[in-house]
Amino acid sequence: MVQTIQLQPLSIENFAPFGEVICCGGQDFFHINDAHTERYHALVTTEIFGEAHAGISIFRNIKQTEIPFSVSMLERHPNGSQAFIPMQGQAFLIVVAPALDDQTPDISKLCAFISDGTQGVNYHAGTWHHPLLTLEAPSNFAVVDRIGISRHVLFTEGKIEVQDEGSQLLAFLVAPKRGMMVADFCAGAGGKTLAMGALMRNTCYRDWE
Amino acid sequence: MVQTIQLQPLSIENFAPFGEVICCGGQDFFHINDAHTERYHALVTTEIFGEAHAGISIFRNIKQTEIPFSVSMLERHPNGSQAFIPMQGQAFLIVVAPALDDQTPDISKLCAFISDGTQGVNYHAGTWHHPLLTLEAPSNFAVVDRIGISRHVLFTEGKIEVQDEGSQLLAFLVAPKRGMMVADFCAGAGGKTLAMGALMRNTCYRDWE
Repeated sequence: MVQTIQLQPLSIENFAPFGEVICCGGQDFFHINDAHTERYHALVTTEIFGEAHAGISIFRNIKQTEIPFSVSMLERHPNGSQAFIPMQGQAFLIVVAPALDDQTPDISKLCAFISDGTQGVNYHAGTWHHPLLTLEAPSNFAVVDRIGISRHVLFTEGKIEVQDEGSQLLAFLVAPKRGMMVADFCAGAGGKTLAMGALMRNTCYRDWE
Repeated sequence: MVQTIQLQPLSIENFAPFGEVICCGGQDFFHINDAHTERYHALVTTEIFGEAHAGISIFRNIKQTEIPFSVSMLERHPNGSQAFIPMQGQAFLIVVAPALDDQTPDISKLCAFISDGTQGVNYHAGTWHHPLLTLEAPSNFAVVDRIGISRHVLFTEGKIEVQDEGSQLLAFLVAPKRGMMVADFCAGAGGKTLAMGALMRNTCYRDWE
């Protein structure tokens, strides 16, 4: 069954179940910088769970969306909020749904909003939403969200590696001592090798493929 | 002595000693959202020190700056980075200086940059910079910086109070027990009262002004 939903103008009130609208209209401010500037303070407090930091990326949309369009998927980020801020005063579309249960969005309550171009949005952690939809392309958005380890520069440059728990447990079970020779007859990327090498303080370890 | 400095076009390279440029040009990206979007990932990793969160505010500049202008002050935020992202594709000015020592900027090395309007900036924690300078007004910027407790909604709505360490130490020295009567002959805002009330599990405390 096809369900048709209407685009609504985005407002602080109608978006409240899903997150915050990043805009001046209807928000309090105080003066800073010798009254040269109005500060609309802490419109969003970024949510970041687990071992990660908040970071700023740019999403550059290179394909525009024509209205009407069909919604075929939604996504969510359980471990952090995600904010989209238009950098060119450009309008964009926001499609969200409340949760039906822990696993599923309530598609019967899907909502579609249109930003007036001065408004950004912040999705609370876990909010079901459609990926970025823009009416013009290319179109740049500043995105404030959770930066996990897998894209951290220390990781991408190969300076650190994430070891899974199993590899580490196995290394402790083997309990290699400094000066021993340990043969791994089926090494993959080398996670266990690294863990055992560290336990042996990097002496006398041979990795046999 | 008046020192004259030239505005330079902002670039990733010339701004590197002070922080990051938030822009697409010259940055790597990867595709997301079924190749509808280029993600210029983690251009900034937000720095937040102490008990605080990253948050998003809007700075709306209501007075424009005419060039040439005089620089009479600089500021810095030792406990967090601060990013400025133009929301209307508008150009703006950036004035920064390296540190001379722990307390002072090196004014002899003052730099002034102009963003082309597609570029935002992130000041590293502790970077000396001039408050926001815009060539047009009003002019909106998304600002990602440290949100301390004093402007947190729980604080501004009076739901939590910050107690200074002295008040708390005194309460522990008095060591009131449940059921005792304690007289404070010189109560101010009530910080010690609250601390002692908590130690007495909110029984039998009288606050005498």
